[in-house]
Amino acid sequence: LFSSNLVPEARMTFHITILGTSSATFGHGRFLTAQVANIHDRLYLVDCGEGTQLQLLKYGINANRIDRIFISHLHGDHYYGLMGLLTSMSLKGRQAPLHLHAHAPLLDVLVAHQRAAQAALQYPLHFHPLEPGQAGVIAAVPGLEVEAFPLRHGIPCSGFLFRETPKPRRIIGERLPQGMPSELIETLKLGQSVRFGGKLCAWEDMTLPPKPSRSYAFCSDTVYHPPLAEWVRGADLLYHEATYDSRLADKALAHGHSTAEQAAQLAMAAGARHLAIGHYSVRYADPALLLEEACGVFPPTWLAEEGKRFHLDIDPDMGIGLSCERLPAKLP
Amino acid sequence: LFSSNLVPEARMTFHITILGTSSATFGHGRFLTAQVANIHDRLYLVDCGEGTQLQLLKYGINANRIDRIFISHLHGDHYYGLMGLLTSMSLKGRQAPLHLHAHAPLLDVLVAHQRAAQAALQYPLHFHPLEPGQAGVIAAVPGLEVEAFPLRHGIPCSGFLFRETPKPRRIIGERLPQGMPSELIETLKLGQSVRFGGKLCAWEDMTLPPKPSRSYAFCSDTVYHPPLAEWVRGADLLYHEATYDSRLADKALAHGHSTAEQAAQLAMAAGARHLAIGHYSVRYADPALLLEEACGVFPPTWLAEEGKRFHLDIDPDMGIGLSCERLPAKLP
Repeated sequence: LFSSNLVPEARMTFHITILGTSSATFGHGRFLTAQVANIHDRLYLVDCGEGTQLQLLKYGINANRIDRIFISHLHGDHYYGLMGLLTSMSLKGRQAPLHLHAHAPLLDVLVAHQRAAQAALQYPLHFHPLEPGQAGVIAAVPGLEVEAFPLRHGIPCSGFLFRETPKPRRIIGERLPQGMPSELIETLKLGQSVRFGGKLCAWEDMTLPPKPSRSYAFCSDTVYHPPLAEWVRGADLLYHEATYDSRLADKALAHGHSTAEQAAQLAMAAGARHLAIGHYSVRYADPALLLEEACGVFPPTWLAEEGKRFHLDIDPDMGIGLSCERLPAKLP
Repeated sequence: LFSSNLVPEARMTFHITILGTSSATFGHGRFLTAQVANIHDRLYLVDCGEGTQLQLLKYGINANRIDRIFISHLHGDHYYGLMGLLTSMSLKGRQAPLHLHAHAPLLDVLVAHQRAAQAALQYPLHFHPLEPGQAGVIAAVPGLEVEAFPLRHGIPCSGFLFRETPKPRRIIGERLPQGMPSELIETLKLGQSVRFGGKLCAWEDMTLPPKPSRSYAFCSDTVYHPPLAEWVRGADLLYHEATYDSRLADKALAHGHSTAEQAAQLAMAAGARHLAIGHYSVRYADPALLLEEACGVFPPTWLAEEGKRFHLDIDPDMGIGLSCERLPAKLP
């Protein structure tokens, strides 16, 4: 079991790297939807448009460190890079199991590809089908849960919420009696008092509240859908697609997409801390217009951009801060 | 019918653009196998590794001008870019039919993808299955024939020969009687004498030999296989894979590939005019070693490289010359 006092600080990583932001097809140097979440030093890939393996190489992320892949829906711009990535993992010697969460028809695609190549992957691939409309926890590792929730798009489409599970309380070192065994310390961290050396050690005296739990919500492709706010309530970072600007609201609705304004309205209604927008139509050479529009409604909005990494860090005062860096691009 | 005297000189284009040269996976900035042949101003795509649509954008080639796609075999590095390309063609308004020549299991892959997306392409896609071991003409348009021939690789694998059909003889303008109707001129060009104005006009007097017919042979993935020389005999440009250097000849054989030396031996045995090598293993940061090795056996060898275009042009003296240019890369 995950034991929090054995977890080095490096394991408390929580960042999201954007690999692609273009809707439907390539353009203006933008790639197709794919993001890597690094949470507690484990890697999760979310969507996998064509060229995702190239973007991983470009930004120095080792594909074989990815534990799980989540595919929101089966439009090509969100998964056509998957077969190449799975194959390259095998060619590069992967043996560790890989978990793939996606809607069921993807399995038929994988089987057809494997039959065509007359070759199997050299590692176990566990396919976890998503049901249309599925809501709730679909993956859990110590310290983290991943929930699926339904988006509204032309075909079955899922959003994903990555949420740290509640953390243990923090020990106040100087109040701890010398020599207290670790089992008792762990009990205090859970908010239960213990007896040691004949004395009651009250958890209220010896611990501080836990560090806050961070969350990231990913809404790949969806029309503006207010009930979504409940699924992503209070997310520290909400990614919501913003394919069009508000002058094209009718087009957005007809194509199962949202405007930047609608993404911002959803973030506001959900009480999100920060919003990242992406999935820009190729009609926008520069998505700055979309950023302006969203910021007008919800100021803490950021543009998703290839090679941008969003960090959710816990401040010394136990708040959750968002910072952003640009990764250097290598020759892939 | 194709009438040579109506064909503007621009239509006599014959060039091959290299889009990808890497074996198995991306590396060192190299992409996966894909080439575009422009012959008589018609575009043919040969193989379609992941990222091919990105390379087409990068080198300014309009995907919707492609008439036919030929896929040599169903290993992912030769076709994982196909679904994205077909989808993007549709998104970009293609209505013209597209012909796809590939081994039969690819059809199951296409069907599985379309079922998953619940969407159809907006243009007719004609699938022409290749039989394992198939040899002979698989496509013909006026002035050009494309032949398939069998390569030796782990799964059914085809090479392709693009060959101009024999051209009509060239009229010697000053010897032509004034007012001769075009039907008679066409007859002379076919090497048949005609009567005009009561006089015999002998084809030998009024015509010169035809321009030479050019040919390009594509051997994607294969072990060294001497009988191949017969299929590609006299090719003006032979592309032959050269995954390894000769120190790794055993590995080449075991993996269904060739060394640079073997590619050159094949070119020599076939009496090819020029050889282009490609499909380099990622172990070679620079394929110059492979070029040296091939040139030692067959001096007119060229490196395939991303963005390189090989022109087969007819000289004023009616020889066939090869020239090479590097295309500028745009932001894709």
